[in-house]
This record gives sequence, structure tokens and C-alpha cells, in this order.
Amino acid sequence: MPAQIEKWDTFELALRGPDSGNPFLEVTLEAEFTHGTHRVRGHGFYDGDGIYKVRLMPDQEGEWEFVTRSNTPALDGQRGTLMCTATSAMNHGPVRVADTIHFAYADGTPYSPVGTTCYVWNLQGDELEAQTLMTLSQAPFNKLRMCVFPKRYTFNNNEPPLYPFPGQVTGTWSWAQRNTYRTHEPPDFWDFTHFNPPYFRHLEQRILDLRAWGIEADLILFHPYDFGAWGFDRMPAEVNDRYLRYVVARLSAYRNLWWSFANEYDLMRDRTMADWDHYFQLVQELDPYQHLRSIHNCHEFYDHGKSWVTHCSVQSHALATVPAWIKKYGKPVVVDECGYEGDIFMAWGDLSAEELVLRFWLGFTSGGYVGHGETYMNDLDQLWWSKGGRLTGQSVARIAFLRQVMEHAPALTPIVRNDSSAAAASSAGTPHEPGEEIRIISEGSWNAEAAGFHSQDYYLLYFGMHQPRWRNLNLPAGSYRVDVIDTWNMTLETATAHATGRMRVELPGRKYMAVRIQKNQ
Amino acid sequence: MPAQIEKWDTFELALRGPDSGNPFLEVTLEAEFTHGTHRVRGHGFYDGDGIYKVRLMPDQEGEWEFVTRSNTPALDGQRGTLMCTATSAMNHGPVRVADTIHFAYADGTPYSPVGTTCYVWNLQGDELEAQTLMTLSQAPFNKLRMCVFPKRYTFNNNEPPLYPFPGQVTGTWSWAQRNTYRTHEPPDFWDFTHFNPPYFRHLEQRILDLRAWGIEADLILFHPYDFGAWGFDRMPAEVNDRYLRYVVARLSAYRNLWWSFANEYDLMRDRTMADWDHYFQLVQELDPYQHLRSIHNCHEFYDHGKSWVTHCSVQSHALATVPAWIKKYGKPVVVDECGYEGDIFMAWGDLSAEELVLRFWLGFTSGGYVGHGETYMNDLDQLWWSKGGRLTGQSVARIAFLRQVMEHAPALTPIVRNDSSAAAASSAGTPHEPGEEIRIISEGSWNAEAAGFHSQDYYLLYFGMHQPRWRNLNLPAGSYRVDVIDTWNMTLETATAHATGRMRVELPGRKYMAVRIQKNQ
Repeated sequence: MPAQIEKWDTFELALRGPDSGNPFLEVTLEAEFTHGTHRVRGHGFYDGDGIYKVRLMPDQEGEWEFVTRSNTPALDGQRGTLMCTATSAMNHGPVRVADTIHFAYADGTPYSPVGTTCYVWNLQGDELEAQTLMTLSQAPFNKLRMCVFPKRYTFNNNEPPLYPFPGQVTGTWSWAQRNTYRTHEPPDFWDFTHFNPPYFRHLEQRILDLRAWGIEADLILFHPYDFGAWGFDRMPAEVNDRYLRYVVARLSAYRNLWWSFANEYDLMRDRTMADWDHYFQLVQELDPYQHLRSIHNCHEFYDHGKSWVTHCSVQSHALATVPAWIKKYGKPVVVDECGYEGDIFMAWGDLSAEELVLRFWLGFTSGGYVGHGETYMNDLDQLWWSKGGRLTGQSVARIAFLRQVMEHAPALTPIVRNDSSAAAASSAGTPHEPGEEIRIISEGSWNAEAAGFHSQDYYLLYFGMHQPRWRNLNLPAGSYRVDVIDTWNMTLETATAHATGRMRVELPGRKYMAVRIQKNQ
Repeated sequence: MPAQIEKWDTFELALRGPDSGNPFLEVTLEAEFTHGTHRVRGHGFYDGDGIYKVRLMPDQEGEWEFVTRSNTPALDGQRGTLMCTATSAMNHGPVRVADTIHFAYADGTPYSPVGTTCYVWNLQGDELEAQTLMTLSQAPFNKLRMCVFPKRYTFNNNEPPLYPFPGQVTGTWSWAQRNTYRTHEPPDFWDFTHFNPPYFRHLEQRILDLRAWGIEADLILFHPYDFGAWGFDRMPAEVNDRYLRYVVARLSAYRNLWWSFANEYDLMRDRTMADWDHYFQLVQELDPYQHLRSIHNCHEFYDHGKSWVTHCSVQSHALATVPAWIKKYGKPVVVDECGYEGDIFMAWGDLSAEELVLRFWLGFTSGGYVGHGETYMNDLDQLWWSKGGRLTGQSVARIAFLRQVMEHAPALTPIVRNDSSAAAASSAGTPHEPGEEIRIISEGSWNAEAAGFHSQDYYLLYFGMHQPRWRNLNLPAGSYRVDVIDTWNMTLETATAHATGRMRVELPGRKYMAVRIQKNQ
């Protein structure tokens, strides 16, 4: 009886092999999995204690066969079969780009990323990590940005429970040492010729924990917040490559995985653009499942137009620019960092909940996606943005409400914003009073703060910090239901069940309102 | 005994002359006023009923002599003297550019424009106009944008009590007619060869009324909000020139006058850039007092770099760009229109008070100036922004508070904003934790939302929608007083009377806070 494995779950073949020498450098292993004419090459990895593994994420139901290849006789030519069964209810497969600028699970179910950020929640010890998972189980997030490597930064002065390489931290690092950042020498206390498998097993467990709550792990492979404390930001080039090969071999069979090649890549000043290109190309070549790939900036975007970039991962507070990025790159735009709700002393972490929710709505109604983070100071120095723990902010409930609205929305195309209704008045052909020619379709003549539409049957208009008492609409042919949404107070009320043509929608003269327009069938 | 006239007040010489023919076209008149070797050429104008006038704004105390010149014997060669006396307390003379990017009255008193907009308050009849003046007498504004010509627009469907030309409106204009906008034909019911002096006398009275309250009249010479209703937006070229000559002759001797060549000049599509250049040059040549000159845009700025532009009059909500405009043009930047507090259905007139006050503080702390407007709907259709009347919004009190703070501030140079404290952390030379290197001087490394400084003895930092619990400062040499300002609740409290070097300023974790740093003497 072959192993039974659910489609898009992870099948693991574990083999006993040599534990002498250095298996990480000396032993090669891969497996060819076949399903009829369909072949998947799985890259094996050494998991320590003489155990070698190869994993598969089967994407077709039915029987699969496999055969291993290795430079080590004990691991070579091993054969077997497995039975891939239908998916269970929560399993929709990995997320892919859909409709050019949006996402869907592999089974076709639409997926709108509503992300949050807990950079190193997975390196805080079991108690806090369990609390983070409990918080996530009740939160609206379906994507989480997290790092492979530990983080040294303000509010992040603790050592991780484990390290990715064998070795022991010796001596005392201090912030004064960060001046050495531009040197390429890591500390000498790591054995970069080995990995520390328990570190990666723990990471895998946390990725699976997220999967259980329907959360995509947007895994950050490199980041600059090390400053030489451990030196994982300045490893030799061949170690970086070996590290990438190892994580791809270990992790790519997890369906809820995204590759984020760096956080603030442009702050890692020892890397060239060619280095980043190389990382992308290496993972693109190795990953049999072609998980989503992007990279997060501080100042300058990496060129998201490059073929190996699947979507734009953006740091920016300029949400009004989302439509321009969509147009420029022709790919989904995920503003993973637009500032966080909090009260710390850095400008990226001291937004009010209202401001963060405003940025979410601007981004989503522009056809993009926006990510959350929380940075309220607390006595435990446990800021959600990096350590996880508890969420205390006011934005989360509103983001849950936004997600509800978006889950009932089709994929949106941005209507380009134009603030000047005077311009609309002058350029429009039909003779009405100034400001009366507001059209919900024609590009550039709608003066909502942000708006998206889906063909002519769905419009979502967001007024942001504006507080009009009414707006004039000019509906296309047909009958429409017009709903007024208070994005802050989380209410949705139908203003008119059967609206046609030119009409006026009454608004309460408050901020943070949206209007949803849906064609009646 | 010669006439006595206060310095920078208006001396008027009135002469009786012919009332036959067309004095507007046929009679020339000017006067040469001399004070020692100083000469001022005053252009005369016909005021109707056989009365011709020449005005002078004397800018030097002591005796002035004058002699007239005219093509009409009765007006030619008239001589006389006047005695210019010292100014009274409220009279500081006309406003000039000072310190390159700021303003001061002619007597050297600093002037920070805190403007509002009532486009056609002067054409609403005595009762409402008196109410507007009463409102202004209690408001913080020291500049008011207003039009010479009447306005046809949403909420502006009334006829003015008087017209600038003889004639009578006949027929019924409708919004449908605005399609004719691109034709150059005005209606045929005006006699463009004459002016209607009572119309201009009324305008003068309103300019004097503003002067009595210390308010500069920023007079808009052309605007597009006519749409052919009266056709003052499409007069023949020679009428436009004659009109400019006439208003310069009548008005330039009023010290509280600024020339705004147009509102939304770029919506007047029958005008070429050469037309606008010509208007500027004509007024520059004619106006003996060189009142401030600018022009207000809808989309594209007129080139404020041209020599005849004294300052930038800007419509934009991009207040963060103020420092860039200051740098580009090297002239004062007055954001006369950044959106108005109100609740109407157009996006330029539906800002919350909080948002407008935020934009004021962004602009002022960036070394620029910002203007107010109010567009709350009401049963009388009397929106402050065009008709005047009453102010009901919440921003006015906060603008008064801002003006108080700014009147105790020296002229500010913008500190260029840089949101990314991560960048500051990476580029700064001194080794501290990320985010700790915030300096209040060095350009680009301060993460306030906007900030300005005056040498090293005064800094004003504004945090906008950010809500930090504290910020780190790195003070230059010396001892400083650090005040925390709540710009919305209008409080100012001293945090530290004697701060030095690196220090931390505690903040309440609310929006709309500012920090003022002043060197102790």
C-alpha cells in the first residue's frame, strides 16, 4: 500500500545514508517523481543524523512513481510509489498570479493577500510563538512576512534559540560595531560548511503552523538587520548559494510558501544587482513549483519588470501610485510596507490606525494589495512587527472588514485618480455644471481618492480623507445597487437598490467612506 | 495748505474735464509726482460724469509736487503739492518679497501670508458684504483672494449688482451654453468701449475695507468661471489690455494690493502663454509700485521662474513638494489652494478641518505659506469660498493658533523631508541603533513629516499624521528650549527649558504634534 498524500500537501521520502565526512558538501541526492508523462525533479537535502530527505508537492491526483539518484550508493536508485488523493476543504494549493495583476490559488479560488509582518516571530521561543499563532488564528491575515535569519535592530536585542549554522556566539557585539558593516567579514564563530538542521526543521514547523490557519509564508531570504551581529548579512558568495539551494530543497514542497529575496535589499550594500539577479535565477531554476518571487525595497525598487519577478513587493507610503506601478510592471502590486500602526520614534512605525486603514483602502481600491504591521511600545519589548505576540491596535478589525468586502469583490482594475474636478468639467463633452460630469468609468474623470472597477458590473470608490455630503454618479446602461460603506465604523448600507444613469448618492459628510456599485442581474 | 497724506496711503487728484465723446478712448492723462529727485508717474483714468483722476501712493515723507499731462487742455499742466506724513500704527506699507523666499511690509515688518478665499464676496450686495467684513474682522486671515469679474459656477448662479461694462444682460444663459466656451465671441450686450465706473468704485471700497482689517487683497484679474455667461472670459485682446490699464490706473495706489493674473489660468484655453507673459509685462511696466505678481494654476504651473513673477501662487495638495518648489524657483511659495474645508461633492471642497490644518502645518513648517477656503453646504447657498458670509468650520481657530506660532518664528528654511529612518541609519556615520541618528540639521536625515529651521537657533518640526511617543533629537552646540505643540488642541508646553546635545523629547502618541526648538540666549 503506497503512501497516501493529499494533492498539494508535502510527501517526504526519508533515507538513511552516511553520517561521516560532510554530507552537506559531499553527498548529492535528487528524486524524479513521475505521474504519467509529468515529471518533477525533487532536490534532496541532508537533515542530520544520517537522514537524507527528498520532498514532493504533488499537483495531480493518482499514482506517482519515484526513483532517486545520488553519488552515494545507499541513496541511489531507490524506487517507490505514492497515491495522491483529492484535496480537503482548506487546501486550495499554492498561490499563483491570476488575471495579470491579481492572485488565485492553484485550484482557481481567488486569493487577495491581506498580509501582516512579524519578521522573526519564529525565533522567539515556543511560548511567544504559540501566542503569535493564537493571535493569528483570530486575525484577518492570510499572508505573513517573516525572515529565515535572526534580526538585530532596535527592540530586537535578544538571541534566537537556535542558529542556522553550527557554532556559538562568542564575545559581545555592540551597536558601535555596525561601523564594520561595509567589511565583508562575518564573525569567525560559524561553521559555514554545515547547516544546523534543527533550525530549519523549526522553520518548517512554523510554516506548517501558518498553513493550518490559511496563511501564506512570505519568506524573506536575506535582510540587512544583522549589522555584523551574526554576519548572516555578509556570508561568502558560495555560502549564500549553498544556503539558497538548501532552503529550496527543504521548503519548496510547502504550498503556502512565497520567496522574498530580501527585505530592503538596497540597504545590503555589499550586494550588486547581478547578485540579486543571480539569486532569483538560481531559485527559479531549482524550485519545481515556481513559488511566487519578489523582493522588498527601502528606497529604489528592484526592477520588477524582470521576467523572474512574479509580483511587486513594495515599500512605499505613496499609495496613490499603485495604479502607475500596475501599469508599468503589468504584475500584481503588493505594498507590503506602507508604514505600521504604532507609536514608536521612527516615522515608519508611528501611524494611527485611521491612517493605516486609509492606506489599506487606497491600495485595495486601486487594484493593489496592502500589508499590515503593528509597532506599539510595550513593557515586554514585544512589538508585533518583529516578535509577534499580541495585537492591540485598532486597525485589525477594520482590515478584517475590508477583507470581507474584498472577498465579495471581483478582481479590480484601477480607475486612475484625478483630483481636479475642474479639469473634468472643462474636458468633458456634455454640458453640465462644473463638477457634474463625474463619470465612474472614464479614466481620469473620477474624483474619488481611489477607485477600481470590474468591467461595467462592479465599481468600488473610496473617498479617503474627503468628507463629501454627496457625490454625483453617471452610471453605465443597466440597473445598479449602490451601497455606502463606512470603512472605519464597519457598516455597509444599501443607498439605492435600483439606480440608473445620472444619480446622486448621499453620504454622511464624514471621512473614510466608500461606495460600492454592483449591476443587478 | 497742501493736502496731507499718510505715507503709503492713497492721494487722489480729481479734475473736471470733458464728458462728451468717449473719454475712455479719447482722453489721455497722467501725472508726474516728484519728491526731490524721486519721480513717480501716475496713470490717470476716467471716473465718469466728467471727472478724471490720478492717484499716488507716496513712499517718502515730506513735500511732493505734481504736474499733469493730457491731450485735453482742461487736464493738462495742472500743478500742485502734497505733504506726505508719517505712517500711523496699522500702516506698514505694501508687502514685498524679503529674504528671497519670504515676505515683509515695506517698513521691514515681517509678513506671513495667512490667506483665505472669497472669490466674489464683493459682488453679493451690501448686506452680505458687510457680514463678510464682520467675519473677517474676527478671523486670522491677512490676505484674501478675490476676483474683479463675477463668477458663474456651481453655487454661483446669481447676477452681480453691477457690471464692469455698460450694458444689460439679455436672454437666458444656461449651462448647456458652456459648450460655446471655445468660441471667442462674448455676448453682444456689452459696450466694451466704455467701463462702468461705479463697478470699479465699489471694488476700490472693498479693497479699502480689507485694508482697514489689515488684509491684503490678492486680486484675480482673469478667471475661467464665466463659461460665456457674461463673456468676460473671452473679451477681444484690445479690451483685455484696456481693462488691465484701467485697473492698474485705478488700483495700484492701494497699498494692500497683489496682482493675481488668473485663477486656474490653464483652464482659459483661448489664451496662449504669450498672452499671459504679455499681461505680466504690461502690468509690470504700468504699476509704479511694483505690487506682488503671480498666477494660479489648475494642472500645470505657469513658469514661476520668469522674471516678472514675484512669488509662486500654487494650487496643489502635494504640500510635501513645497521645499522642491522653493528650491526650483528661489521665490516665496504660497499654496493658495490645497483643498478647502467643507462637504461639497467636489474633491477640492470636501476636506475635514483636521486635513486642512494638517496641510497648513505641512506648508508653513516647510518654509511655504498656505491658504484657506471653506465650502460647507448651507440653505442659503452662501459658501464662504466664493460669496463670503459666515465661517462655520473648525479649521479657522487652529489657523489662528498657527499664525500666532508663526508670528513668533523667524523666516524658515525647509529641512528636506526623508521618511526613511532606515536610510538615515545606514548613511549616518556615527554608530548608534537604527533610527537613533535623527539629526535636526542635516538635510535628508530628519524624519519629521515637515520641518524648517532658521540658522541654528530655531527649529520647527511637524509630525503630521504620525503619532510617536517620543523622538530623539541631536541638538547643535548650545542650550535650547524645547516646546511641544499640539496643533489641533492648540496647546504649547515647554518640555525642557535647557536641553543640550542628544536628547529625547516625549510626545503624547497623538497626531498633529509639533516640536519647537529655540536656542537660549
